[in-house]
Amino acid sequence: MEQKLAELKTILGEVMDLEKVIGLLGWDQQTYMPPGGAEDRSYHMATMGSLAHEMYTSDRIGELLEQLKPFVEQLDPDSDDARLIKVTTQNYKKKVKVPTEWVGEFASVTTLAQGKWVEARAESDFEKFRPSLERIVELCRRYADFFAPYEHVYDPLLDVYEPGLRTANVKGIFEALRPQQVELVQAIKGRPQVDDSFLHQHFDPQVQWDFGVEAITKMGYDWKHGRQDKAAHPFTTNFGIGDVRITTRVMPDYLGSAFFSTAHECGHALYEMGVDPKLARTPLAQGASFALHESQSRLWENLVGRSYPFWEHFYPRLQELFPSQLANVSLQNFYKGINKVEPSFIRVEADEATYNLHIMLRLEIELELMDGSLEVRHLPETWNTRMAEYLGLTPPNDAKGVLQDVHWSSGYFGYFSTYALGNLVSLQLWDVIRRDLPDLDDQIRQGEFGNLLGWLRENIHRHGQKFEPQELVQRVTGSKIDPAPYMRYLTNKYSQIYQL
Amino acid sequence: MEQKLAELKTILGEVMDLEKVIGLLGWDQQTYMPPGGAEDRSYHMATMGSLAHEMYTSDRIGELLEQLKPFVEQLDPDSDDARLIKVTTQNYKKKVKVPTEWVGEFASVTTLAQGKWVEARAESDFEKFRPSLERIVELCRRYADFFAPYEHVYDPLLDVYEPGLRTANVKGIFEALRPQQVELVQAIKGRPQVDDSFLHQHFDPQVQWDFGVEAITKMGYDWKHGRQDKAAHPFTTNFGIGDVRITTRVMPDYLGSAFFSTAHECGHALYEMGVDPKLARTPLAQGASFALHESQSRLWENLVGRSYPFWEHFYPRLQELFPSQLANVSLQNFYKGINKVEPSFIRVEADEATYNLHIMLRLEIELELMDGSLEVRHLPETWNTRMAEYLGLTPPNDAKGVLQDVHWSSGYFGYFSTYALGNLVSLQLWDVIRRDLPDLDDQIRQGEFGNLLGWLRENIHRHGQKFEPQELVQRVTGSKIDPAPYMRYLTNKYSQIYQL
Repeated sequence: MEQKLAELKTILGEVMDLEKVIGLLGWDQQTYMPPGGAEDRSYHMATMGSLAHEMYTSDRIGELLEQLKPFVEQLDPDSDDARLIKVTTQNYKKKVKVPTEWVGEFASVTTLAQGKWVEARAESDFEKFRPSLERIVELCRRYADFFAPYEHVYDPLLDVYEPGLRTANVKGIFEALRPQQVELVQAIKGRPQVDDSFLHQHFDPQVQWDFGVEAITKMGYDWKHGRQDKAAHPFTTNFGIGDVRITTRVMPDYLGSAFFSTAHECGHALYEMGVDPKLARTPLAQGASFALHESQSRLWENLVGRSYPFWEHFYPRLQELFPSQLANVSLQNFYKGINKVEPSFIRVEADEATYNLHIMLRLEIELELMDGSLEVRHLPETWNTRMAEYLGLTPPNDAKGVLQDVHWSSGYFGYFSTYALGNLVSLQLWDVIRRDLPDLDDQIRQGEFGNLLGWLRENIHRHGQKFEPQELVQRVTGSKIDPAPYMRYLTNKYSQIYQL
Repeated sequence: MEQKLAELKTILGEVMDLEKVIGLLGWDQQTYMPPGGAEDRSYHMATMGSLAHEMYTSDRIGELLEQLKPFVEQLDPDSDDARLIKVTTQNYKKKVKVPTEWVGEFASVTTLAQGKWVEARAESDFEKFRPSLERIVELCRRYADFFAPYEHVYDPLLDVYEPGLRTANVKGIFEALRPQQVELVQAIKGRPQVDDSFLHQHFDPQVQWDFGVEAITKMGYDWKHGRQDKAAHPFTTNFGIGDVRITTRVMPDYLGSAFFSTAHECGHALYEMGVDPKLARTPLAQGASFALHESQSRLWENLVGRSYPFWEHFYPRLQELFPSQLANVSLQNFYKGINKVEPSFIRVEADEATYNLHIMLRLEIELELMDGSLEVRHLPETWNTRMAEYLGLTPPNDAKGVLQDVHWSSGYFGYFSTYALGNLVSLQLWDVIRRDLPDLDDQIRQGEFGNLLGWLRENIHRHGQKFEPQELVQRVTGSKIDPAPYMRYLTNKYSQIYQL
């Protein structure tokens, strides 16, 4: 049995290598690849994706998993080996339903679609992207059908990002959340707006970059095992626990983007950097799910990076770097400015109070695209109608509307909900952290993040994908995903800022 | 038969994808990978290298090649298909002799060795690199033994880079060349030295970079299908005909490095960019050999980039960019300065007259390492003794001596000779080009390179690896590799500069 387990680990190690290499192809595509490289890259992606899929779904893995069943029953169910076999079995069962041809086609189509999306967004011309998106939607519906019968056509897609969660669960959570979020936004609307005009000045991009680097170095980002590059749409990726990279974008005339993006991606990166090295080159060596991942990125971006204690430490430094822009802005006004609530077009720039509304809009649209009630060609008008409904805004063009996000061009249908779920989980965790680290605010005020990171490593990061996401949330917080702590946090925070 | 050929092409397309992806892993490793990523990368390299090898040596490819034999006999022997099958058969016969285990081990060992080499060179401490190099030498000797019996243990290694060439051929060429090169260097030594002190001033690195970009854009480098990054050891690589990347390094206090390195790599890149798109994703879609490749890089670096007509066009621009450094340096003196002959420690910075001596030294050492008459631990002293013998110099430390080049850490034993052979071939081609384009100097003087590039595309680039290197040289120049044109060129050039 030990020998069979070793064989399984050897094959899985190679599959993981292939997946990491695919990750590098993607990183390169979004950072440095010249535009003329897209066609070659689509072949690389198709070949690599097919190979990784074939290897993961090989008969030999199926046999080994079958033969290891009795062995698992003797193991501590929480042991690394028992969990590895469990997670691999789940993955295997999912993957064998998907034909390799689909995997190759999906990889090729989405690789080419990303170039089309970049072009379409630059020219704010949805038509340039439409044919690609139609193929992707069609491929995603085919993917879902591999898992028929299903409760909801969207379930198999959601399961890619949030294993174990159903569409009905997410809808339930969002239905509970939406009226509370809308009510809060309305209440804020009735109060005098805070001033954030000081954020809209010229801020030297290199100095912005350097400040972000300085801050995340203190947070614990390890440059020996990572690096930061520029990307149109910031993301984090890793090629092993030893090479976890982030990307950011810098706006020369707006201070409110680069730092928060850097802190956000740093949160993702700390998760991957903190996985127990014992799990390296296994399917367990990655974050538990997309929602769990987002709980980490939003925790560092918002709960730390938009908190008052954080800027008690960092604001003097920021004023030193941008004296002419910030000398006359008090810490209190800076704090209010970076927490200004205002419905806006772009999700990634949304404040904490309106952010989840962007997500709910996307979930609605994705559900309709998948169940067939919405056609791709009607997407721009539907987007704009919903924006008016959810946020009271009409985008001036498709670039600031339906074309804003990279996800659909990558075929990531099912992904968006995890952003909102991550917000909720971040607060569930935060409540436990504050209980365990009662002087956390003081530590942050000193620019000390070691205990916080230590807590996250111990309770979340090191486990990687050992525990299912719902199970991990339950273990750590004693509850399943719950919007209450998030709403309490928002209400407290904005009551103070807006004197509600 | 058509169907079998199509199947062969499909499999080869996938093998080529894997090789290109391995190329990207290498590009990333030498440009952006954080140091802590080396261990993960060694796994990626081993897995990918093994997979590509297994796929290339699969029984199915063997069967198809066997079954296609009668079909090939009906084809025009110069047709793409006939050549594809011929080259693939040769590659296949070589590769099946090499066990996959060796390929994986070699990939892993050399990936890790590169980090060790970087460290050892930075500290000028050969001992840090010695254990890695010992393993690599051992692995290369094992590689050679897969091809026993051989005429010379070095033959199978040389054959990796220069298919069809034997060690005895290279020794023969070098023996004819060496006394002539030594005599020329001695003659120059007897003349008053030219002044190149103006090259050793501070030159803004970004301006140096921009000048190189401007120049190679005129040469025909296509930025839509390429990019330039920084690397400790400049190189060119490609991930398809549509994505051909170069790297360079910039020395802030020496003008004689970045531009010539950029022009050199541009020469390599133009070759790969010029391969006939019909050959894409086949083993034919790459330069014919390393010597042929080097003939292109040296042609653009030296025959164009160190020529008087070239600087008649570009020198006014360079003076404009660096007025305080160059305003008082005449074109004539600039030309002499960039062509100064002086024995030096570093191969890549060597002038055209001494360059090949560096190569001959390396060949001697490689032959001895491979036949066992030299042990790795005695390498630094042997290097220094030979440097004194060949160039009259003793390196001040190992960084400027035995540790200067990246090749051995990458396991590239057999590679170096192709640099000198490339020099020779570049002049054989140049003689034909001058005959076909009698007003070439005038074109270059106008900054016009279209006809030159067109000639190279037509006669060399588009063929890719269709013709064996020796055959291609013969076809285009009517002669096999011959040192005479190169020596004539050097003698003419330096007679004028040094009034010999």
